[in-house]
Amino acid sequence: MLCWNSLPPRRKKEAATMRMIDIIIKKRNGKTLTQEEFNFVANGAAKGTVPDYQLSAFLMACFLRPLSDKETALFTKAMAHSGGRLDFSSVKLPKVDKHSTGGVGDGISMALAPLVACGGVAVPMMSGRGLGHTGGTLDKLESMKNFEVRVPVKLIYRQIQKLGVCMFGQTQDLAPADKKLYSLRDATGTVESRPLIVASILSKKYAEGVDSLLMDVKYGSGAFMQKLEDSRKLARALVSTAKLLGLKCRALITYMDQPLGRAIGNANEMLQTVLILKGNKELAPDFYELLIEEAANMLVISGKVKDVKKARALMEEKIANGEAAAKLREMIKWQGASPEAVDNPVKYFKNAKLKFEFKAAANGFVEHIDAKTAGMAGVLLGAGRNTMEDAIDYGAGIWLDKKAGDAVKKGDVIATLYASDKKRLEDGAALFTQAVKIGKKKPAPYKIVKEVIK
Amino acid sequence: MLCWNSLPPRRKKEAATMRMIDIIIKKRNGKTLTQEEFNFVANGAAKGTVPDYQLSAFLMACFLRPLSDKETALFTKAMAHSGGRLDFSSVKLPKVDKHSTGGVGDGISMALAPLVACGGVAVPMMSGRGLGHTGGTLDKLESMKNFEVRVPVKLIYRQIQKLGVCMFGQTQDLAPADKKLYSLRDATGTVESRPLIVASILSKKYAEGVDSLLMDVKYGSGAFMQKLEDSRKLARALVSTAKLLGLKCRALITYMDQPLGRAIGNANEMLQTVLILKGNKELAPDFYELLIEEAANMLVISGKVKDVKKARALMEEKIANGEAAAKLREMIKWQGASPEAVDNPVKYFKNAKLKFEFKAAANGFVEHIDAKTAGMAGVLLGAGRNTMEDAIDYGAGIWLDKKAGDAVKKGDVIATLYASDKKRLEDGAALFTQAVKIGKKKPAPYKIVKEVIK
Repeated sequence: MLCWNSLPPRRKKEAATMRMIDIIIKKRNGKTLTQEEFNFVANGAAKGTVPDYQLSAFLMACFLRPLSDKETALFTKAMAHSGGRLDFSSVKLPKVDKHSTGGVGDGISMALAPLVACGGVAVPMMSGRGLGHTGGTLDKLESMKNFEVRVPVKLIYRQIQKLGVCMFGQTQDLAPADKKLYSLRDATGTVESRPLIVASILSKKYAEGVDSLLMDVKYGSGAFMQKLEDSRKLARALVSTAKLLGLKCRALITYMDQPLGRAIGNANEMLQTVLILKGNKELAPDFYELLIEEAANMLVISGKVKDVKKARALMEEKIANGEAAAKLREMIKWQGASPEAVDNPVKYFKNAKLKFEFKAAANGFVEHIDAKTAGMAGVLLGAGRNTMEDAIDYGAGIWLDKKAGDAVKKGDVIATLYASDKKRLEDGAALFTQAVKIGKKKPAPYKIVKEVIK
Repeated sequence: MLCWNSLPPRRKKEAATMRMIDIIIKKRNGKTLTQEEFNFVANGAAKGTVPDYQLSAFLMACFLRPLSDKETALFTKAMAHSGGRLDFSSVKLPKVDKHSTGGVGDGISMALAPLVACGGVAVPMMSGRGLGHTGGTLDKLESMKNFEVRVPVKLIYRQIQKLGVCMFGQTQDLAPADKKLYSLRDATGTVESRPLIVASILSKKYAEGVDSLLMDVKYGSGAFMQKLEDSRKLARALVSTAKLLGLKCRALITYMDQPLGRAIGNANEMLQTVLILKGNKELAPDFYELLIEEAANMLVISGKVKDVKKARALMEEKIANGEAAAKLREMIKWQGASPEAVDNPVKYFKNAKLKFEFKAAANGFVEHIDAKTAGMAGVLLGAGRNTMEDAIDYGAGIWLDKKAGDAVKKGDVIATLYASDKKRLEDGAALFTQAVKIGKKKPAPYKIVKEVIK
């Protein structure tokens, strides 16, 4: 006689195969998922074998039943392995990159990558584009005519071997699961989940094949996280998950309640980068300080230099002796743009033709310049995007002639705004005026690097 | 000068329109949704204007942030209004229906609808099909050749006006949002949410246009809810939500750990129905008891009879005097099948040609017959479906010659199994043997109606 175990065959077959619905239910019930289950989700997302409606139910379950650090690491690996990974094993130097959660006027990357490469490490730096009030490194680099950010993998390897530095955009094949899941999260109210944010950020860096990673986690009005405490939690989760993945990692928690440096906009920020690397550190002391601190920490976590103090001194020296600017010049040449950008920066980086000078209405001090409002004003001027399809005006932007703490007299120029048409200039100016607070008292100075999370 | 409020226009436009993502986020955060928001979701599901991935993220948010009774009522209304509603306002009698959460051998509906109609109320009864071990009323009715369950709305109205009873399947246009959302829940691990279950059940009944509703919430191995406590919670949620919708409602919590009555299978159960309505109450006392209790409660909640005792007496009288069987006979004629089903039931309802008699191996008592195992055995015999595409063999099934509590001698027939092919008969028999427990002691009797929730 037949026994129950052999019946019905339909059920036995199903039990042998992994099913998305069982993974959803397991996570929904708050259970811990395995590497194989996360692989099933990530590969299903990358290859389209799991339908969107199951992925989005899974993401909401992850949102409301947050992943542990261990699970986050498993999910990160699964997403990183959903496509090709870069392989720098033939490069003998330590490989180090940095990731910033994004801000206003944060053009640190273009200065940081060549500078750190001068310290004897390899810097394959993968960056993104801007959206909303947050700028993007790729857009800033493209303000240099013919600068190529879509570098084929073979050429990335070659440039890293020969020059030690390359700045490029995410390749099509890198962590495709993250790309798919991020677009679903954006449409399904599941963006603001710390473990999902961590897995998304780290999956791309893990796939990039570096061994050390510095995180710049910003807080303040212009940052993804407004509150210091939230940025601290994100920084801790990033560092502990990165370590579970075998990456050397540190996070700096940095100030983004006001714009960094003097420039907002693409050509504008590249100009500032070049001037700083050419030794004009007094131009933007906050920018210079963050640059040196980030560079020094990258050298330390990579094992190249023993402590931050020594590493800072080395980095300052590489700027003072011209090596950093020379490395930037070489990188620009390798990636197809003109060395004029470094040789004659003020002439090379052109502002948009219309100009508006925002002047002080009375004597006093600049008390505060709100980063988010200033960043949104930059978008209105034409420097950014509201949607990924919008075009960018590289010459549009804002130059901050004054920063918080500066004394002003009535009629002094606080900022100069640039745009290519009158309507944009008016709109940007109308908004920018709301970003600036002038008062009677000199405000207390703020620290640009608030904490280091190891 | 322009002010901030006028900028940027994109955002203003968005703010004026309701967006699915905002509704998802609101529910994700555990906030209470409004009627307008539930309408947006239900209409989006029905019309396809909200993509599946957003609906499924919403459903998972509802699963993990359960809807309150008030929200459940709002969602029920929204789903009911996503399509056409039946309108029995021209019928002056009270309109009453019942819903069962489903079980094994639960062929009550086919007897109940004509019986209750004899009490002077209108019974427009909308039913479904069977899946897995749970039988479906429409399948049972269709074991009568030419019985039409797809009744056009106009003919439903006419039959209710003239006869007071009509049994039909869900029309295409009735609560289409529920249809869409149910299929998504099935694929995304969001079925077992009490508020979503309540909204799904009630949306169809609310759209059906009755003013009184009896719920039969079963518990036990053969039921949707295995535990008494779970069925009690569901019953309470159903009753309180139905009342918020303005429906008169009561729930019976009933036993489904063993099959109801003597028949499992479609023609089999119709035969039992006819025999019971023709007065053979000793044939299946548990079935008869549940029938009378349900019928009486329907008359009471509809306001037609004052108390259950009087209503029970009236219903027993309607069976004894032949009115109920006559009403069933009329309904069968109206809906296209032959009155022979009532006039010569034993001849009319044919069993499948192969037969297996399951006999007692020793003297003793039938202690227990497991409902779920017996139901699954029925499916193997050909009486049910594993998927909605499977065909049904109306003559396949099981007749329980003995029920729990009956004494048996070695060799006595406990049950007779019917199938149309040998393999099916063997498979069904193999499984059915595991459903029956024979022991030395007579088991304690069980109550068929455990509780009434008002």
